[in-house]
Amino acid sequence: MNQAVKFIGKIESSIKTIAESPLQGNENAPGATIVIFHEFAEGTKDIKPGDEIILLTWLHLADRSTLTCYPRNNTSLPLTGVFSTRSPDRPNPIGMHPVKVISADGNGIIKVAGLEAIDKTPVIDIKPIVSRQGL
Amino acid sequence: MNQAVKFIGKIESSIKTIAESPLQGNENAPGATIVIFHEFAEGTKDIKPGDEIILLTWLHLADRSTLTCYPRNNTSLPLTGVFSTRSPDRPNPIGMHPVKVISADGNGIIKVAGLEAIDKTPVIDIKPIVSRQGL
Repeated sequence: MNQAVKFIGKIESSIKTIAESPLQGNENAPGATIVIFHEFAEGTKDIKPGDEIILLTWLHLADRSTLTCYPRNNTSLPLTGVFSTRSPDRPNPIGMHPVKVISADGNGIIKVAGLEAIDKTPVIDIKPIVSRQGL
Repeated sequence: MNQAVKFIGKIESSIKTIAESPLQGNENAPGATIVIFHEFAEGTKDIKPGDEIILLTWLHLADRSTLTCYPRNNTSLPLTGVFSTRSPDRPNPIGMHPVKVISADGNGIIKVAGLEAIDKTPVIDIKPIVSRQGL
């Protein structure tokens, strides 16, 4: 059973290939731009510089048949159940990236720091880091 | 443009309706069981009691046309862009639940504490909270 994910935008990044991409956003990843498509842009109207957000992407180059893998591609580590790893190769290749907003135009263009996703990666959701108000 | 999400499992919970569900898992949500379907169960073999995981669900009762909403359904708050809220009503109704593992059989049955998702909610991914090792 399944349902269609909508691509709501895309990443623009200087990282063009998986080989160039750090394994996590806190490992010297560059800044990038989130471009939300026009039909969904109103949903970004309250995103502000300084916001801490969780960006969800669809890692479109992933192998969706993977159930076990070597963490960080290190074959000296035990073969591990994929749901105990952050491997992009998994049944639903959803990337989860905590990032800080550098600038936002309120209409779909959001620049962020430290994002390891490659150029043209589809965006599927943006969520705030939950605050005391529980937004 | 879109792609199919695979439902890899489901939630079993005493919460049967949205009306019964707390807005966040830390608001007196009960324990629940994650049942991963047989074909994906191997991917859970390394999930252990005490693990802190992020459960991703597909909030199947959501309104996917929503771009603005009132945070916490409070109409005295400003109408807010949905990507600055945790509303389940959003273009891709992905629920993101940080939960602690109480027990796990290594073969797809995982009991967790404090989960606000309702009974029969589809599960789409499980990720570890990123450790120093970056798994």
